[in-house]
This record gives sequence, C-alpha cells and structure tokens, in this order.
Amino acid sequence: MPRPIHLNLFIHGRGHHEAGWRHPGATRKALTDITYFADLAKRAEAGRFDSIFFADALELGDGARYVASGALEPITALAALARETTRIGLIATASTTYTEPFNLARQFASLDHISGGRIGWNIVTSWVAGAGPNFGYERAPEHAERYARADEYVGVVKALWDSWADDAIIDDPQTGRFLERERVRRIDWKGSFYRVAGPLNLPRPPQGRPVLVQAGSSATGKAFAARHAEAVFTAHLSKASAADFYAELKQGAIAAGRRADDIVILPGLSAAIGSTDAQAHTLLEELNALTDIQVGLSRLSNRFGGYDFSALPLDQPLSRDDFPDPSTVQAAQSRAAVITDLVARERPTLRGLLRQLAGARGHFTVAGSPERIAEVIEDWIESRAADGFNLMPPVLPAQLDIFVDHVVPILQKRGLFRREYEADTLRGHYGLGRPANPYFQN
Amino acid sequence: MPRPIHLNLFIHGRGHHEAGWRHPGATRKALTDITYFADLAKRAEAGRFDSIFFADALELGDGARYVASGALEPITALAALARETTRIGLIATASTTYTEPFNLARQFASLDHISGGRIGWNIVTSWVAGAGPNFGYERAPEHAERYARADEYVGVVKALWDSWADDAIIDDPQTGRFLERERVRRIDWKGSFYRVAGPLNLPRPPQGRPVLVQAGSSATGKAFAARHAEAVFTAHLSKASAADFYAELKQGAIAAGRRADDIVILPGLSAAIGSTDAQAHTLLEELNALTDIQVGLSRLSNRFGGYDFSALPLDQPLSRDDFPDPSTVQAAQSRAAVITDLVARERPTLRGLLRQLAGARGHFTVAGSPERIAEVIEDWIESRAADGFNLMPPVLPAQLDIFVDHVVPILQKRGLFRREYEADTLRGHYGLGRPANPYFQN
Repeated sequence: MPRPIHLNLFIHGRGHHEAGWRHPGATRKALTDITYFADLAKRAEAGRFDSIFFADALELGDGARYVASGALEPITALAALARETTRIGLIATASTTYTEPFNLARQFASLDHISGGRIGWNIVTSWVAGAGPNFGYERAPEHAERYARADEYVGVVKALWDSWADDAIIDDPQTGRFLERERVRRIDWKGSFYRVAGPLNLPRPPQGRPVLVQAGSSATGKAFAARHAEAVFTAHLSKASAADFYAELKQGAIAAGRRADDIVILPGLSAAIGSTDAQAHTLLEELNALTDIQVGLSRLSNRFGGYDFSALPLDQPLSRDDFPDPSTVQAAQSRAAVITDLVARERPTLRGLLRQLAGARGHFTVAGSPERIAEVIEDWIESRAADGFNLMPPVLPAQLDIFVDHVVPILQKRGLFRREYEADTLRGHYGLGRPANPYFQN
Repeated sequence: MPRPIHLNLFIHGRGHHEAGWRHPGATRKALTDITYFADLAKRAEAGRFDSIFFADALELGDGARYVASGALEPITALAALARETTRIGLIATASTTYTEPFNLARQFASLDHISGGRIGWNIVTSWVAGAGPNFGYERAPEHAERYARADEYVGVVKALWDSWADDAIIDDPQTGRFLERERVRRIDWKGSFYRVAGPLNLPRPPQGRPVLVQAGSSATGKAFAARHAEAVFTAHLSKASAADFYAELKQGAIAAGRRADDIVILPGLSAAIGSTDAQAHTLLEELNALTDIQVGLSRLSNRFGGYDFSALPLDQPLSRDDFPDPSTVQAAQSRAAVITDLVARERPTLRGLLRQLAGARGHFTVAGSPERIAEVIEDWIESRAADGFNLMPPVLPAQLDIFVDHVVPILQKRGLFRREYEADTLRGHYGLGRPANPYFQN
C-alpha cells in the first residue's frame, strides 16, 4: 500500500508568483477581506487537504509597492476561518522573537479550542531585518540568538499548555466545585531568556498541544526541527536536495529520541497547471512577463539581509563570488544558501535568476498538465523526498481550483490521497499522536 | 425627543453573579466552547444591543476553584464571533502593560477589517497582581507607572493605525502598482517606554481606529479616559455616585478639548429580573445562598492587592478602619474606593458585604420586574448618570433572554431604544465620528 500524501495549502497574497495578483485568474478581493480567505479554506477543505497555512512577516517591506500586500493578521484570520470550516487543519505563523510566550501560548490554546483541535503553530524567529525596529530593537537580534531564544521559548509554551491536566475541570454545580486546583500547576519557568510563573489561564488544548510546525532549514534550523517540529515546510529547487534534507531530518529526529514518523516533511511545490504541458508553460511565461526587475532585486536583497545587487549586470552569467557568504547573512540563512548553490551550479544571468525566484521565492516550481503534476508528486513521495507538499499555487484562487478539480482526483484514483477525512483534528490528518502531559498522570 | 440609550452586553463566565454558574438558568456549555459565546452574541444582536464585551485577566486567579473560569482568549474569540454576527459591535480587553504595541495595533486592525468596522478595544493596564510574573516581572508594575506607559502606548497604537492613508492602496493590475508607498509612513516613535518604527503592515481599519474603551475610574484613570476614551465602563453602587462621575468625566473631556458626546458613559447594571419584583428578589436570594464565604474573601483580598481580611468577624458591623487606604492599593484603586466608601456609609457586616459584592463585584445591582428595570434605566438616563448601560446579567443566558424579551420592548415602546440597527459599525451605534487621519490629507 502506498504511503498517504499530506497536502497543505500555503495561502499567500493573491498567489505565490510575484506577479500572480496581476493575472486574470487572481481574485480582485482585498487582502483584508476575510471572505477571500474563507473561500480559499473552503475550496481546500472540499479538496480534502490536511491544512491551510499563513506565513507572516512583522514589517510591511519594500516590495509592497508592486506586490499585493497588507493582509490580515494570521491568528485573528485563523479564528475567523475556524468558524467557516469544520475539518481542515489551520496553521498560523507566530514569532518567538517578538511575542510574549504567555500571550502566544494562550492565543494558540484558544484557537485550538475554538476550532475543535485543528490548529498548528508555525514557529518562526522572524528573519526580516525590519521587524526588530517595530519592537524596540535597534536591529533584529542575530540568527544564533534568535534560535537560542526560540529553543527556550518552545519549552515555555509547551509547559504552559501542559499546566492543566486534561481532567482538571470538575464543573459540579451541586457541590460548587469548578476546578480541581491540584490538577493545575504553576510552571515557575526561570530560564536564560524567560521567566514565566503560570499556570495558563485556560484549559489544555483539545490536541494536548497544537501541532508544532517549523520551516528553518539552516543547520541551526534543522537541529531545532529535529527536536521540536512535527511538520516541516522546506524549500528545494530539486528533488535530490529535498531527498537529502528528508533523510537528514528524519535521522535527526531519531537521534533526538523521536520516531521518523513524528515529523511530516512538506517541501514547497509551486505548480503552474494547464490543460496541457504547453498551456502550463504559456501561463508561466505570461506571469514572468508581468514581473518587475526592481521588485525582484528588492526581494533578493532582503534575502541577503539588505545586500545590494543593483550594480550587477542583468544579462551576464553570475558566479558565487557575486554573492555574500550565506553563513554571514543575518536573515534566512538556508534560503540564501539555496540561492547561492543554484548560482554556482547553473550560472544564470541576474535576469534569469530573478525570474526563477519570482515563481515561488526559491521553492520548487513545475509547469505541466494535471497528470504531469501528479507524477511529480508521486515521484517525490516514492523517492522519499517528501511526505507531502506545501502547495503554493502561483495564482489564487484559479490555480488552486485546477489542482483540486484535476490533480487531487488523479492522486485519489491512485490510492495516494484521502477521498474523505478520516480524522477530526490536525494531528489526526498528519498521523501524529496526542502528546501525553508529562506533569499529570491520568 | 428622549436621548437614545446604548446597551453593551458584558459577557462573563456563566453570568456575573459569583454563584450564577450553579443556577439552573446558566448554560452547561464549557467556557472554551465558542458556540456558547456565539449564541450569546446572537441573542444580544437580536435585542439590538450596541455591542458585546469580554473582560480579561492575565492570570488564572485563586477563585477558579469555586467559580466557572478558564474562558477563551478575547481577541481570538472576537474574531470568531465576527463571523457569527453581522451588525453588533464587538469589544475585547487587551493589556497595555503586557502586550507589544505593534502586535496589539495589528490584531485590533485585523479584527476591525474582519468584522467590517465593529471592533472596540477596552484598554486596561492589568491590575491583577498575578499577571506580572507571567510576563517576566517579579511583580506587576505599580499603578502610576502602568498608567504612564498606557498613555504613551495609546499614542503608539493610534499612530500605527494612522500610518496608512485611507486611500493608500491603488491595486492596479494593469500598471502593476499595488500600493502608493508615499501614502504609508513610518511612525519612528521614540518615547520614554516605546520605540516603534512602523508603518503597520496592514491598511487603516474600516473605522479609522477601533473604538477606544476604558474602565479605570481612579483619578489617574479618569484623566486617562478624558483624554482617550470614547466609551467608558464604570462601577457605581448608587445613581448619585454615577451622576457625579458622569458630570466629572464629561467635563474632563471638554477640558481636554473634546466634546461631551465624544465619550459614551456606560455604568455596570446587574439586573436580576423576575415576572414580579417578588420573584426577582427570590432569584437573588437563591443565588446568594449559593455563594461561598471563602470565594468572597479571596475576591475581596484580590481587590485590595492581597490584603488579608480573614481575621475579621463575619457578623459584626465593619468600619473604614478595617480596610487599607485605597490610594495605597496597587490594583484597581477606584474599585477599592467604591468598597471602602460603601463600608463607611452603610456599616455592613463582612457576610453582608461579601453577598453584596457577589452580585456584580461592586457594580449596581437591582432586582425587579421588567417594568422596574426599565424604570431604573430611564431614571439614570434622565438624571444624566449614564448614556446607557453595561448589562451584567447575573445568570447567562437565562437572564439575558428575559432582558431581551421583556425589558428591551418596554424601552423600545417608550422610544428610548432602537428597534432596528441604524448603522453598520460600532462607531455608528455609539454615535461616534470616524477619526480623521492627522498624517494624511484626503
């Protein structure tokens, strides 16, 4: 029997292609209109996706001038979508660098209650340079410090979620006893970065803990994922690179005392789908023709912590020497490394590189018919390059619709993807167990 | 023509009476069940209330053992309720002491977009002693410092909401221009407590700014309200005290360069309603009989920053000397003052005082028939003791239902309360204007 595939819809603006919002297949609704996101969530649920996901950045960013930007905040959006859907998992990004752990633990616990156990937290340390100054910092804390904090932060948040026994509430109007106070404990966390007394002020979430999701792929990021992550979003430009990552991370989880199945690995997949391969390629060419060199340069600069590429010639082959050493980049180191490796390997022109990144910012892109997309998915799964995919439609909602209507049925016919939901929680969809509470015996 | 009345439903546990949750008229749903709150919001909307409101405390508290506790977090709850209702205003409490201003400004802006302009922010500085240690403090910051921070904090949040011109988004797929970047500005706030660069990362809220609500009634709290608040919740045990507060606050607003109508004053009203006055008194007696001395003592102690009253005799008249000076209390000073004034005036026994406070924690309580409740409401409005009320039903949902079904129609018949909504936003319901954006001319 083939391994089941997991599918997450990554919701981003009006599509993941940088120029997707300019395409006729993109919505014309505002990114502050909850009905747009509710509609996407319902379409994904109709397609039996495991989950939907919102990324996040704690600054507006320079690209906003030319890219659909300024969307709803993910936690509030997710709470609203919890009332618009009944089965699909809901994942929001939130930052360990710029949020009080008590507030974050509480809001995600509340979301998990509101949704009946369908919530995941995408743990980020916030690499964008502009976030720090929105939170009282001269500049963002450095990569290593952000991860050191994040490691402790996740410990605090887990301890808060676990500060109530699952059976702490008695709720007996006859005797007047509501809570068994001995089944709720202070956490009295006193670490290097955080001091949090606890307990949390609401009961343990239905899933025990919301699913912990993570997307850092630097050496530090991978070590973090091996310890904590239950689902991982990751960016690869080739199946070989994804397979290496997959093997390394599963091994890392085992080394950290966990099982390989305790981490679901979901590489990004931006599929431009047409009735035929030729039509799909035409779509991608149309989108690329709508891109803007300045937008691409600004995004590339962002990825390298503000490095200025604007003096480079547009139409001559690049070399690795044109780029700073990724390990010195105080942003998303792994994504910088993906890009410099690509440059060293393929020697693209700057214009060509920007177009390649315009599709999905360094994630795998493929153009083809529904059959072709289904083949890629099956191939990556069989090659143990993925447990499923973080689907990044280049244009929303049009390209999601095509995927749901034409790719999902192929996967279902081959027995690779569920026809109906078999679980009610995100943990259930991902095949993850409910974490025991280490502080209370039942 | 009589002045219109404003009504806010204060949602608290299974009712405001300390023992309300033990009464047969209380829901049996969990306080983590969003359908319970959705049902209340819909009932209040059917009754044409201006708004609903969630209070908040950033600690579990000792009372939880004997009182229904551990409810959903207000911001996430409000986002969900925005999708369950269409007209009623939605007010959440959030703390200026324990939340990053960028995160708070952003979540409230997002809520205002999700709800189509129906959001209010109840600004609190978090008086409960246990909150500080959940956020890295040895103890909560003192009253004066909390308010000094809050004053600056509100300035930061307003500046973030105003960092986008209302017309900043161009959204032209033809030219590829999405945002007029010159119509979005950094705020570069550098104050005594906060440094925030901005701009916010989503567009200005539909209401310009969510409605600013406030409930502090100390001297500092009143000065704060006169400067910032657009709606005020306040606790009074008599109409005379409410009328004094009303006159003082309206005068304070005028002294601060605002109009008297720029602040809507809503005293708390806990109405125990029965078919007859006698039945209503029986209900209140039933509820009082279900209270617990230990719960009352613990709550009273909380109100006085942890002061221990347990050595006082239960059945002898109290005097002011039995209480600490309210101005030294590092919690909610105004509520402490309300209680000591009552003691000096009425010389209740400790048992009697605890029962009196059990009804609504120092807010005005009245028991009577629907006609009697409507008379009280009309009398307070005519006496300029209130612009409306913060309704605190002792038992939820039963006592809300009776109010909606039997008191509201009396008020409507007398032309005092709307029969249909006349506005789509919370500002509209409260008769408040949309704030101009000081940074951008239209």
